[in-house]
Parts: sequence; C-alpha cells; structure tokens
Amino acid sequence: MPNQFDPPSGTRDFLAAEFDRRERALGVLRAIFAGYGFEPLQTPAFERVDVLLGKYGDEADKLVFKILRRGEHEATGEADLALRYDLTVPLARVAAAYGSRLPTPYKRYAIGSVWRADRPGRGRFREFTQCDIDTLGSTSPLADAEVLCAHHDAIASLGLADFTILINSRRVLSGLLEVFAVPPELGPAVLTGIDKLDKMSPGEVISELTSRGLDKRAGTELIAAMTAQDAAERIRTALKPSESGMAGMEELDRLLALVGSQIPPERIGFTPRMVRGLSYYTGPIWELVAAGVPGSIGGGGRYDHLIAQLGGPDVPATGSSLGIERILTLLPDDAGGRPGTVEVAVTVLSDDLAAPSFAFAAQARTAGLRASVYLGASGKLSKQLRWASDLGARWCLIYGNAEREAGTVTVRDLVSAEQEVIPAAELTDYLAGRAADARG
Amino acid sequence: MPNQFDPPSGTRDFLAAEFDRRERALGVLRAIFAGYGFEPLQTPAFERVDVLLGKYGDEADKLVFKILRRGEHEATGEADLALRYDLTVPLARVAAAYGSRLPTPYKRYAIGSVWRADRPGRGRFREFTQCDIDTLGSTSPLADAEVLCAHHDAIASLGLADFTILINSRRVLSGLLEVFAVPPELGPAVLTGIDKLDKMSPGEVISELTSRGLDKRAGTELIAAMTAQDAAERIRTALKPSESGMAGMEELDRLLALVGSQIPPERIGFTPRMVRGLSYYTGPIWELVAAGVPGSIGGGGRYDHLIAQLGGPDVPATGSSLGIERILTLLPDDAGGRPGTVEVAVTVLSDDLAAPSFAFAAQARTAGLRASVYLGASGKLSKQLRWASDLGARWCLIYGNAEREAGTVTVRDLVSAEQEVIPAAELTDYLAGRAADARG
Repeated sequence: MPNQFDPPSGTRDFLAAEFDRRERALGVLRAIFAGYGFEPLQTPAFERVDVLLGKYGDEADKLVFKILRRGEHEATGEADLALRYDLTVPLARVAAAYGSRLPTPYKRYAIGSVWRADRPGRGRFREFTQCDIDTLGSTSPLADAEVLCAHHDAIASLGLADFTILINSRRVLSGLLEVFAVPPELGPAVLTGIDKLDKMSPGEVISELTSRGLDKRAGTELIAAMTAQDAAERIRTALKPSESGMAGMEELDRLLALVGSQIPPERIGFTPRMVRGLSYYTGPIWELVAAGVPGSIGGGGRYDHLIAQLGGPDVPATGSSLGIERILTLLPDDAGGRPGTVEVAVTVLSDDLAAPSFAFAAQARTAGLRASVYLGASGKLSKQLRWASDLGARWCLIYGNAEREAGTVTVRDLVSAEQEVIPAAELTDYLAGRAADARG
Repeated sequence: MPNQFDPPSGTRDFLAAEFDRRERALGVLRAIFAGYGFEPLQTPAFERVDVLLGKYGDEADKLVFKILRRGEHEATGEADLALRYDLTVPLARVAAAYGSRLPTPYKRYAIGSVWRADRPGRGRFREFTQCDIDTLGSTSPLADAEVLCAHHDAIASLGLADFTILINSRRVLSGLLEVFAVPPELGPAVLTGIDKLDKMSPGEVISELTSRGLDKRAGTELIAAMTAQDAAERIRTALKPSESGMAGMEELDRLLALVGSQIPPERIGFTPRMVRGLSYYTGPIWELVAAGVPGSIGGGGRYDHLIAQLGGPDVPATGSSLGIERILTLLPDDAGGRPGTVEVAVTVLSDDLAAPSFAFAAQARTAGLRASVYLGASGKLSKQLRWASDLGARWCLIYGNAEREAGTVTVRDLVSAEQEVIPAAELTDYLAGRAADARG
C-alpha cells in the first residue's frame, strides 16, 4: 500500500544495506572502466530544455521531466530546464563545450541517475542509474573492442557468469536489405519486423511485413534465413553479392578477432536478427543478454553521426550502456555482512562513565575499526549487550565501575562470547591486533 | 563568456580531474562517518511537492525547483514534484516511512546533490553537494558529541588544519535573554542582531535593537558582554541567575568534556555570540569556521522537534552539515597525479598488429595496471610515444614487426626513458613486478 511517506512513484529510497550493495557494484564497474583508460564525467542533473528536447523524437520527449521557470515566470507554467533523460545528450553537450580541452580520443565513463516519466512497473523506474562508456573521436575498431570488452569484464567481475553477447552490424543489415531486394523505403519497417522475432512467430512477422508492402517471397526468404539454425552461416553466404554487406561482415570478423583475447568464444556470437531498435547506429552493434532476464542487460555499438545530431561536434563515436538496475537484481544477496557495519560497540553504563566510554570508541577508530557508543537511556548491561549484538558488532567494550577502579576495559567477543580484561592504556594496540587477526 | 554548450547557470560539469578530486574527498568523509557507525541513506532527487513546500518558510519555498506535471496535465502549468532543497526533509520522510524498520537510534549520513534556485555567484551554486550526519531518537549528549567529532575528524582527515569550532547553546541564549530582561516578543530580533555582530559594529547592532524597541541600557550591556575579550567568562557569570541559562552552560560544559578526547582544546571554544540563524535548534549549536573563508564551513546542533515539524515522527535529533563545496576550494590541488590515469599505453603500429596490441593491454590490466591502446590513425611510433606521454602513462608497450618476429614486447619507461625487451609470454609477470616496485 503506498502511503504519503513513500518516495514518489517510480523512485526508491536506498537504506544502508541496499546502498552498500549498489555502491559495491558501482565501485567494481568504476575500477574496470578506469582499467581500460576511461575517465569519469559528471554532468548536472538538469539541462536547458532546448538541449534535451527534440533529440530522440516525440515519444522520448513525453518522458522528460520539465522544470518550471521560477519567480515571476512561474505563473506562465513554462519550463526552462529539464532532468536529463540519458547520459548521451549531456556527453554531446560536453564535447561541444570543451572541444580541444578534452583528450583525443575522449574516452569517458558516466554512472549517474537519469529520469524518465515512464509508467512505473516491475524493474522500471522513473529515477534509475545508467552506466555508460563511450569513446569519441576514433574510427578504430579497437575503440569498439575496448567498450565491448570493458562492459564484458564489468559484468563478469560482478560475478555474473551466465550471460552472452549478441553481435551484428548495421552494415550487414543494410547489405541484407540489398540482397533480399527490400525497397529502401521499406528498410526501417523490415528492420523493426526482424527486431520483433524474439516476441512474434516468423509467420506473424512475415504477414506484418507483407501487409506493409514487402514482396511476400522476399519477406519469406529473409525471415527464413534469419531464423534458421545456421542463420549466421546462411546470412554470411547470402551477403556475398553485396559490397556493403561484405564490408560489414569483415568489420564484424575483425571485431570478433580483437575481443577474442578477452571474451570467451562461447559467450559471443554473430546474431543476424539482433537489430537494436535505435536508428542512429552506423557500424557494429551488440546486446548483452542474461539467462532468466527478458530483454537485454546492456548494449551499444558504433554511432558515428549521433553526437553531431545531438548538438555536439561531428565526431565518430562508439559506446555501450549497461542496464545496471537489471544486473543488480541478478547478483546474489550479500552473504558476508555489510561492509559499513559497526565493529566495536561501547557501553555507557552511567553518565559518569560517558566521557571515558566515548574516548574508548575513539581509540577503536584509531585502531582502524568502526565504533559506536550506546546512545540510549538504559543503564542496564544486559540491554546494552543486546544493542551491541543487534548492531552486528564483533566486539563490545564494557566499562563499569569495576573497570574504572582497575584502570581496565572488558572486551567481549560477541561471536565467541569470550571476554578479556585489558589495561585501558593498551586498548588501541589490543584492538588493532584483534582486528588484524579477524581480517587475517 | 557563457555559451549555449555551458551547463545551466549555477551548475557544473565535473571532468576527470575535478571528479576524482571530489570523489577522493567524499570517500574520506564516507569512511569517517562509517567509522562512527553512521549508515548511508540515499533518497530520490525529487519529492512530492507537498513534502517539500512550507517546511522552511516562503523564502526557502521560492528557491525550490518545481517539476511540471506530465502528459495531459502539462498544460495546466502545475507542479507535482520538486527537486530536494536539502537532505533533512527527505530524512524526516524516511523516518516516517520506515519507522521501526530503522535502527534505534537511527544514525545516518547522506552525501548528495541538492538544488536551489538561488542567484548563482562565487561559490554559490544551484546544484551542490550536501554532506549531513544526523542521529534521530537519542537525547544523549553523546549523540551531539558524536556528530560534532565525526565532522571534526572529517575535516581534519581532508588535510585542513586551520579551522575552529564555535560552540554555544540555545538554552544559554534563552538564559541570556532572561537575565538581560529582553521581553519575549523581542527575543528573535535580539538573537538575529547578535548574529550580525560579525558583519556590523556593536554600535550599529545596539541602534538596530533599540530601534526595534529594546531598552537601550539592556541592549548596551548585552552587546558589551557579548563582544568583550572575555565574553565567555562574562556570560558564564551573567547567566547565574537564570536556571535555564545555567542548565545550558552545564550541557555545554558536558559536551566540551566529551569531545575533549578527540578535538584539541585550541580548536573549540564557547562563543556566546554564535547564534546560528535557524530557529529550530533546541540545545547545543556549533559552527565550523576556517581561516580565510567568510561564513562557516559547516555547522549543526540539536533540533529536538524539527523532524516532527517536517512531517516525520516526534523524535529527538541532532545533526551536523558540512559545506563541502567551500571545503573543497580550501584543499590543496592534487599534486601527485590523478588516481585514475592510464599507467600503460600500448602502441598499435599497423592494422595487423592491432589484435596482439589489444591483448597486451589486457595483460597489463591482469597485472593490475590501467591500460589503453592507441586509437588514432597514425602508424608513426614518434606520434604514438607522444600520445603515451600526453596520457601521463608510466610505461609504453611498443610492438612492431621486429618484436613480432622475435616474440617480444619492448617496454619503455616514460619516466627514465629506458627500454627493456621482454618475451611476450612473460609480459604480465614483468608488469606486475614493475607495478609492485613503482608502488613500493
């Protein structure tokens, strides 16, 4: 039941455990991307409305959250700013703004929230994290290979094993339209039809294409070749008469050879029917799919003219985007406790003892341990021990009148339930030693 | 000169060097806060407009960025969502939403962007990072001591040495109003006047207070006591007739004793004229000030009823907020190179050599080094060496026809300009060894 204190529809609060889980995963990704020489970029949450709108068509524009003008202009009901819809439009703006001050090529990663006024649903949010890597300014197939391998390594490093990469090329698809004599004006509809082969039967797709005006025989042959067991081989053979198609195949073979040193061959394969809906791709395209997840967990490709279309300079570009929200749902829940949990809990058994107890917590931190004092109102040891245990602390420092008189602290191991009495002056060293043992 | 590709007014793009600088600082803060047992919380960028508005008064409401309703409602010009203005209102909502599912007390830190439609200026942004720690559900002075020490340690750990903490108490201030016979209705105006003593002369403040109706003699005595060299002692003496004032002094002395184990005494002191403008504080209050920076770099205090006023449960609370944007300007520029910089640059001297070069970069990563291949069009070694040097790489791997024939790779140290020829099969081990040496 939603209530007035829930976060807005389609958004989430991340409390400690979930926050830590996400941060750990994003930290793995950042390290992998930096390992490939991609550098971070962070842009504002909002852009001027003219920067954002009209870039991906009317349907996308409807999903943009627009921000009302302020002050005297508020009454106009007009918007001058809007929350970013993706991380690519801001990249185009940055490329235009900083030009030659950026390295050439500009290899950047961006991990950040984007906002879309989509209908919220299972796994679909209005605020979600995108995770993109892109290289601007290189036509080299090595640039495609880098983004592809970096995303492969990222997913593998997160511990996901059961995923595969479908790879194709826009130039292969153009060649196919050519050899199957698809009239140019029907090209986009045919590609859209092919894209539906994972949801519709081949017969349904053929009917749809013929109803749009495609010759029935051409459509039947094309779809038959696409859906055959040996589709990759059949398409490769069929492409021979097309110069562009052959060039696309060579490009793909080259890319597969490059990534071969890092991506196991069983995890990647030429997949003629993988089209990727977006028309801006110009070269190799790929999609990452995981067992048990509908749709993809990521994808990308070469898009040599998009940056200019988005308002940036006319530079060749290639990039890949991970569906990190979906990937997070596939990762095992954290088994070994949370990294941020308090390790040392310190009792405060009376007001008089508060100051030394507070100082013991500081000593525990000096020893490299996370530590917290008891902040409640009860002076009972049993209650405070329960608090320490609920916190998930490994050790509880007990300091009562007996300890004060003796100049000691009692250190209780909450796992073994064993206690040791330590001279107060030696506490830091003692805890540092125990911490080193525990981390072994 | 602003241009169409700049980020929106009052916002910033963070390219790699600045991003890394900020992330490093925020990482230090996260570790300190976790060390004190504060846990992270991340809430959405926007909240429902009724959650945000009417919480801090009309002036604050004017600074809220409101988001237009979407779809058919867009034409109404109404807003249903708004970007968060601070991290405290979302905390109140979370406390209300999750209630007993949160630990008691709930000690959380939040580091995140907030948005205010303020007039942008030097050091004042429309999108900026706040960095808050708060404890809900404890009346213990240890809770105040923890947030204060955690922020002290955070700033000290960032390497800032020249800062001090001004500390006072709302109860001391109430006692002062009482002993100087300030009529209750003039209380807020007098506190506001005292707050201005860092910008106006004592005479100006006295005139302002008398013009508001304060008895001239009471005003003169009060301001004289406040601005005396020995203000702390004079105020302490003056407070003796006031029960609430004495209780406030005891509370402060207790807090100073608690933090004494962690904050050097020269860095913190009772400062009667430090008022903090916000009326919601109920107990100790503090402000962190740094040499050479106008205003404060942080502050906080106990605010036992605010969470309820903001729509949350009625729980005691204490917290502290760091002005991280100001603090970042005080930190030394990074001297020792960026942590994310590429360490190994790999030449690609011909198309034929691209695949092995790409694989060598992968080997460098396996050895734990950040590595990148050359993505440009030139086949010239001199040009590629310059690229490697511009990247800031420590090593350049050179692989030409001679190396291919010999089954070797040439590893050039770009610092010493020395080269070694390594069997290709031993490259990973060799680089791992060099990396270990370099990191010493």
